[in-house]
Amino acid sequence: MSVAFSGQRGAFGELAAVEFFGSAQTPAPVPEFTDVFEAVTKGNARYGIIPIENSLAGSIHQNYDLLLENNLFIIGELYLRVSHYLIANKGVSRRRVASVYSHPQAIAQCKKYLRRYPDLSIVPVSNTALAVRTIQEQKLTDAAAIASMQAAIDYDMQVLAKRIEDNPANMTRFLVLSRTQRRKAAGELGTKTSIVFSTKNIPGALFKALSVFALRDIDLFKIESRPVHGRHFEYLFYLDFSGSFYQEAQKNAINHLREITTFCRVLGSYPRGRLAEPEYRKR
Amino acid sequence: MSVAFSGQRGAFGELAAVEFFGSAQTPAPVPEFTDVFEAVTKGNARYGIIPIENSLAGSIHQNYDLLLENNLFIIGELYLRVSHYLIANKGVSRRRVASVYSHPQAIAQCKKYLRRYPDLSIVPVSNTALAVRTIQEQKLTDAAAIASMQAAIDYDMQVLAKRIEDNPANMTRFLVLSRTQRRKAAGELGTKTSIVFSTKNIPGALFKALSVFALRDIDLFKIESRPVHGRHFEYLFYLDFSGSFYQEAQKNAINHLREITTFCRVLGSYPRGRLAEPEYRKR
Repeated sequence: MSVAFSGQRGAFGELAAVEFFGSAQTPAPVPEFTDVFEAVTKGNARYGIIPIENSLAGSIHQNYDLLLENNLFIIGELYLRVSHYLIANKGVSRRRVASVYSHPQAIAQCKKYLRRYPDLSIVPVSNTALAVRTIQEQKLTDAAAIASMQAAIDYDMQVLAKRIEDNPANMTRFLVLSRTQRRKAAGELGTKTSIVFSTKNIPGALFKALSVFALRDIDLFKIESRPVHGRHFEYLFYLDFSGSFYQEAQKNAINHLREITTFCRVLGSYPRGRLAEPEYRKR
Repeated sequence: MSVAFSGQRGAFGELAAVEFFGSAQTPAPVPEFTDVFEAVTKGNARYGIIPIENSLAGSIHQNYDLLLENNLFIIGELYLRVSHYLIANKGVSRRRVASVYSHPQAIAQCKKYLRRYPDLSIVPVSNTALAVRTIQEQKLTDAAAIASMQAAIDYDMQVLAKRIEDNPANMTRFLVLSRTQRRKAAGELGTKTSIVFSTKNIPGALFKALSVFALRDIDLFKIESRPVHGRHFEYLFYLDFSGSFYQEAQKNAINHLREITTFCRVLGSYPRGRLAEPEYRKR
């Protein structure tokens, strides 16, 4: 197992791993996000890959929590375009389709398309790859699945409609995790560093925290606040900024930040990720 | 229809509406979030209620998009604790349960509980209230549903286990929408104002934007950045701060912010919301 991803074969996590590593590493499925962290921590996998935010659904706090609970480093990122396909058994025409199988989230992302066919009945299943497998195994000739193109290829099925998602800007950012941090993080698009910190909520606390970057002309890519459960007026901040913690200004900014925050953890410095169209391939 | 919420009867949106308005307004279900906005805009509903962020799943960007597309005002908010219950037909014991029906997100939020019974098979359905209705209609004696306590009451079913969610900090923030803004927004916990703005991504742009609040000792409750699709290096920011736009300092801060941003919209000033345990009642 060299890259652990959560879900089934053909899941977007696997596509992201293939885009990131090419053929250099072999993706292997594990059931849950926690299993990805465990596989890398115990050395059962060399790397792990997890989704961290989606352009429509927002940040996945659960994975930020796991980043804080575990001691892994972010060594890379990738933005993957999420496209949905309407998939059926060979020989089935779109007109004969009376029901559509998929995960409710994929169904929700294709609402505009599905509204054109109000007579379709919707059958929810646990994941999109399973939807394809189900209509294949049951040899259904009046049903289709919504899933990725990779699932259509893996199960050798017919594509009835391409890119049926409502929002073409639907993309998911993945993080690549390792037990050891990168020595050199610069990439084509430059380097990025991710940190998590918390402040007491006194007026201007965040302003002071951001001043350590502004004073050093360090650009910010992402900022997000999140209330800390059970502690009123305490916030956790997710911050991504340009440059690496091996650079002088960035190192000074982090030390400066530690003076004025109650908690600060560097999650990793890594090359800024590109936006990839998943590349589907026969296996 | 006086408060539109999305989903079925017994959905968390309805519980939030009841917590917020008591018996003063009657909640009415509509299919989608867009329908909530449409009902209020067209005057078919006096108010609308939408989820805007969940403590585990993050901000719901889709609803921020709808806030920007429509011209409604936020007039209130409420934090609702999200609890899941294991529900069965009367006379069914937990030992006889062989399968569990629910929405995949509710299933995911009860993973630790379900892991104790690895032989259970999981049946995904489109929403949690439907899960309860299904096992009732089919008179299943070897199945249970994961849903809210309200669904157990509405369908007069038996509760096998309470609060089976992994994370007791699971809560959802709801916003109450109206066509007209509040004249007086102060509440027990004070007032909050929500805005959305965008800046060009020049180093320090966000720092400058936040200075308009720090210079006036205005406290921040939430900040979140989001890349603007199709425009590189342009970001949208969601910001919640203390006070109302009827106050001098806040008004000046917003005017100051407009000088240095490319876009700025005030979504509303409203009393800060409390955290509510949903109150279940017979109907």
